[in-house]
Amino acid sequence: MQKGLSVSDSDGSTFAPLVVLELAPNTKEEAVEWLLKRIRDKQQDGGAELLVEKLSPEDQSTEKDNPNVYMVGASMRRLLFGAEDVGLFKEFNDGTMRSFTCANRHNFKEFQGDGDSFLSMAECQYIIKHELDTLRAKGEAHVPGYPKMKLYPGKSVIRRIQSKGILVQIFPLHENEELKRLSFSWYKQFKLSFQPLDDIRHYFGEGLALYFAFLEYFTFALIPMAIIGIPYYLFDWEDYDKYTVFAGFNLVWCTVILELWKRLSASLAYRWGTLSRKKAFEEPRPGFHGILGFNPVTGREEPLYPNFKRQLRIYLVSVPFVLLCLYLSLYVMMIYFEMEGWVLMIHDEEPTFWTGVLLFIPSVIYAVVIEIMNLIYRYAAEYLTNWENHRLESTFQNHLVLKVLVFNFFNCFASLFYIAFVMQDMGLLRQSLATLLITSQILNQIMEAFLPYWLQRRRNKKAHRRVIKTLADKELPLSDQVKLEADMSTYLGTFDDYLELFLLFGYVSLFSCVYPLAAVLVVLNNVTEMYSDALKMCKVFKRPFSEPAADVGVWQLAFEAMSVIAVVTNCALIGMSPQVKSYFPESDTQLIMWVVAGEHLLLAVKFILTFVIPDIPKNIQIKLSRLEFESLEALKKRVSTASLAFNDTLKILVESSVFFTPDT
Amino acid sequence: MQKGLSVSDSDGSTFAPLVVLELAPNTKEEAVEWLLKRIRDKQQDGGAELLVEKLSPEDQSTEKDNPNVYMVGASMRRLLFGAEDVGLFKEFNDGTMRSFTCANRHNFKEFQGDGDSFLSMAECQYIIKHELDTLRAKGEAHVPGYPKMKLYPGKSVIRRIQSKGILVQIFPLHENEELKRLSFSWYKQFKLSFQPLDDIRHYFGEGLALYFAFLEYFTFALIPMAIIGIPYYLFDWEDYDKYTVFAGFNLVWCTVILELWKRLSASLAYRWGTLSRKKAFEEPRPGFHGILGFNPVTGREEPLYPNFKRQLRIYLVSVPFVLLCLYLSLYVMMIYFEMEGWVLMIHDEEPTFWTGVLLFIPSVIYAVVIEIMNLIYRYAAEYLTNWENHRLESTFQNHLVLKVLVFNFFNCFASLFYIAFVMQDMGLLRQSLATLLITSQILNQIMEAFLPYWLQRRRNKKAHRRVIKTLADKELPLSDQVKLEADMSTYLGTFDDYLELFLLFGYVSLFSCVYPLAAVLVVLNNVTEMYSDALKMCKVFKRPFSEPAADVGVWQLAFEAMSVIAVVTNCALIGMSPQVKSYFPESDTQLIMWVVAGEHLLLAVKFILTFVIPDIPKNIQIKLSRLEFESLEALKKRVSTASLAFNDTLKILVESSVFFTPDT
Repeated sequence: MQKGLSVSDSDGSTFAPLVVLELAPNTKEEAVEWLLKRIRDKQQDGGAELLVEKLSPEDQSTEKDNPNVYMVGASMRRLLFGAEDVGLFKEFNDGTMRSFTCANRHNFKEFQGDGDSFLSMAECQYIIKHELDTLRAKGEAHVPGYPKMKLYPGKSVIRRIQSKGILVQIFPLHENEELKRLSFSWYKQFKLSFQPLDDIRHYFGEGLALYFAFLEYFTFALIPMAIIGIPYYLFDWEDYDKYTVFAGFNLVWCTVILELWKRLSASLAYRWGTLSRKKAFEEPRPGFHGILGFNPVTGREEPLYPNFKRQLRIYLVSVPFVLLCLYLSLYVMMIYFEMEGWVLMIHDEEPTFWTGVLLFIPSVIYAVVIEIMNLIYRYAAEYLTNWENHRLESTFQNHLVLKVLVFNFFNCFASLFYIAFVMQDMGLLRQSLATLLITSQILNQIMEAFLPYWLQRRRNKKAHRRVIKTLADKELPLSDQVKLEADMSTYLGTFDDYLELFLLFGYVSLFSCVYPLAAVLVVLNNVTEMYSDALKMCKVFKRPFSEPAADVGVWQLAFEAMSVIAVVTNCALIGMSPQVKSYFPESDTQLIMWVVAGEHLLLAVKFILTFVIPDIPKNIQIKLSRLEFESLEALKKRVSTASLAFNDTLKILVESSVFFTPDT
Repeated sequence: MQKGLSVSDSDGSTFAPLVVLELAPNTKEEAVEWLLKRIRDKQQDGGAELLVEKLSPEDQSTEKDNPNVYMVGASMRRLLFGAEDVGLFKEFNDGTMRSFTCANRHNFKEFQGDGDSFLSMAECQYIIKHELDTLRAKGEAHVPGYPKMKLYPGKSVIRRIQSKGILVQIFPLHENEELKRLSFSWYKQFKLSFQPLDDIRHYFGEGLALYFAFLEYFTFALIPMAIIGIPYYLFDWEDYDKYTVFAGFNLVWCTVILELWKRLSASLAYRWGTLSRKKAFEEPRPGFHGILGFNPVTGREEPLYPNFKRQLRIYLVSVPFVLLCLYLSLYVMMIYFEMEGWVLMIHDEEPTFWTGVLLFIPSVIYAVVIEIMNLIYRYAAEYLTNWENHRLESTFQNHLVLKVLVFNFFNCFASLFYIAFVMQDMGLLRQSLATLLITSQILNQIMEAFLPYWLQRRRNKKAHRRVIKTLADKELPLSDQVKLEADMSTYLGTFDDYLELFLLFGYVSLFSCVYPLAAVLVVLNNVTEMYSDALKMCKVFKRPFSEPAADVGVWQLAFEAMSVIAVVTNCALIGMSPQVKSYFPESDTQLIMWVVAGEHLLLAVKFILTFVIPDIPKNIQIKLSRLEFESLEALKKRVSTASLAFNDTLKILVESSVFFTPDT
């Protein structure tokens, strides 16, 4: 728990603030009071039984500050029950991970005394978020003071006031001490070391820790390729013939690393207790709307939206829109090739140094345009997916990921495929690949980390200057810290980070055989990415709520799809190499047949490998089976105890000869 | 429960016999007594708490009969607890399927009064089998009277005496009344009707019912293909050009029917309560041996066999053996082609009617040889897989299925692939396919149903003649029925039946475009197969123990693999058709490129389809989610009740100020 900061409760006792609720400044008094009462009410009365207090700024000089900021905390007892409620897994005395229960709390390894340090602050904040989210309307027909904001029994109060704009934002507080320690071990020491994954998980939760684990794993996986790539680059620069071996290596590599990652991620998820954690029933997402009806699963009243309407929106609007965008992207690509030809013509007419530089200009422009198109498309995709009105956040995310992936893949790789297989110009392919890779990396790093960091620093300086007068080197008082954090940007999740890795993976696995330096560049990029991502998580963004995650989700699938495409592409590149062609001097047909046969064989082997390599390492599999076995045995014991009781009842029945007269 | 038959218990009361245990005639008295005591002992004392009595034959005239035959039954109370123990799913009052619990028994739909007719006899027999299987040794060091038959705490008694030959066989009794009713609705009325799946499941269990459901589904799925095939056969007999459309149809068909089957099978499994049933912890299979150690999952003492030794046996012996067999099969194929060429030569020299007949002889001989090789290989595979010493029956089955499938696939289809793609002789392909299909069907039907049926009838007649003297048209007495059934052959599971369907599916999906009558032949075969399989289940074999199954298991995978191969094969056949070739008169390369591109697209669509079509129909998905949601809610309630209790404890702690002093 965070030391040093505390808020006075209404009855005088203090509590550590965990989560900040910022309400709109003009929220009506009665709505605020109703909300606070609901949050404070006992669970038996349908409340959340949390502690909540208004932030009392020590310095009320600045008029423009929002006065409606509330701090939420909870007693340790409440948090422990919350932990049971959300199904948290913790390490048991025997070293296995088990679902935490209060009754059993003393058998958990880190539970000492009153359990004060048992839950990390991130876990506490996650629990409070969950409890707030499941705070449901009871009898209220609408939010008090706002007759138009309808409520119905069972509707999540927080989600309603959030979607209606009363709740401006809800975010967990940073812990300055912890953050300093984490950032020191994470990015402040300039030596090569492993990412402090357990600390990241402790502070930011499993979802983000898995992203950094994947980033690190991916970087390490690239190193052999980078090492092989350097001599290729140095000695065979113009010798495309030799790339066959490299393509073959590529092909095996991208299959194997994904399989191994699955195992590593299962190990991490087990250690962090998310592997066998059961997902709670998902609430409708805040923006979801529809006609009030009864959910067939829960029986609760909630908005229903007919599936066929959603399908219509998807197939009649979203799909055509995506196709249109793909067409547009193709069009831009064609313009690029025209520019390319035009520049080449100029260079051929009168080759000077400047025309040599000019040769790279179209590629750079194209790379920039691609990035801009990706960015614009991203907003459009989000808008469309929102409009499709998916009930669950997870389906929303899946549809969004699919839309964005298809477009990004097409946008980034279409030109490369065109050059490789239609124009069959390996020199141009290498040049395009290099330009695309380098430009997009530079753009990304700037857009993603340094620009926000710079903006944040400017903002911080302004805020600091105000405060610095009173405090020399002491810590900021709570009210200032909250205001500082409230102004920070919000981290929108790991989507963009994974997307970037996905595209890099594509560049490397698809075409690195023609440009062996690609792997080296990606490794360099990843190393800086680690630092810049760490920086942005610690300094630029508000602390995000921790997201329990057992794997990288839909991205595993995306990467696997890419690796299948990589097998096909690499086989085709091998087939096109002069070295291979020289084996079949007479007939192209035979060559193609052999390449196709080889490719089919490889794909078959790939699928068999996916099937044969177990996704979960054996030692963890054993631990999981043991838990399952124990719960089955426990159930059996319960049955036989019940059996004894039932036995007695039966005896009475049999003695009064009502029950079971044997057949004759 | 079976009316009319009963056995007197030791204390004079009677019970309905369910399962027969046949011990070796020379079993020592003390071993028998110990076994009976363990079966009868109360569960608290580690017994199975079942009823067991020696079969007392009314007619002891025949000396050669085995006197050591025991009947096992159980009280209804015991069976209900057993049902809870094995995790039986039954229909609840609200129409959903739920795990049966005794405490909740009156809320189940079919539970009336004392629950006498609640469990079907097959379920009772399954429960008894399970209870016998989990009857474990306690302190015994060996089977009494047999110092060499070692026991250790936790070892399944039944499995030990079975693997040591004391227990000759264990089988459930038929119910004559039920069987008559079932066989009437199943195969005795010669009208086309659906299979009585629910009745089959009621009598034989889910595993077998799913097989018949699949057989029926597969037959219906073939009908459109058969209908399209007839005009093709009638009008385009020699026109190979037109088969492109048929191959395209094939390709879509085999993808779609497998996806739909998954949904149908999920519906059936839900209705039968096996879909969400949890698998119990699997015991080591009877033949498994190793050095005594502790199972890392259960902590129980049991034999352990190091995995690397098993892997060595698999990779150094089994794999080379399989490869050798494949080589042999290839060799036989080459001999067939030589014979074929030789016969063709004779026919070409002097074509007469007899040389025309001679043309078919090599194919027929080859078909017969293939069947014989399959049969021999089957035994070898079983022996080898046994020798590999797998711990679980399920892994044993998977390895066996894999071995047999690979060889059978190769053996049956290698010649067809050779003719199609190396010789490119469509006329010969058609002729070979027809001969293979028809010969193997005829052989199968004879071997599988009519031969055993005929043998069984001869045996029955002999047995009957002995009995018939005393009984005119009355039912057989129990002792005679038991002896009759003990002499019947044992049904070895659905393996061979599925294998046959798998090969038929292969003939149809791979090559039916060149021989459109294949689908018609397979439909005819399936219809007779339904009757002959029904006949053999009811008349030829001992009743098998019911096998709870939620799907067709590894066969789904096998069929899907075949459908992928079918896509590739059909694309290749399309590419080879003169009709398609005429579109690319100049270049073969272009043709191949287009075919390959189309094939890749189709495979991609196939995988996307597999992914997009939900495996479980939506209405069942909703029911399952509801159950899960309810159990989560119930858990939450339990937590908040506990919370109240915990609350009180905490109050005391807080009041004595031991617990939770807030941070400052």
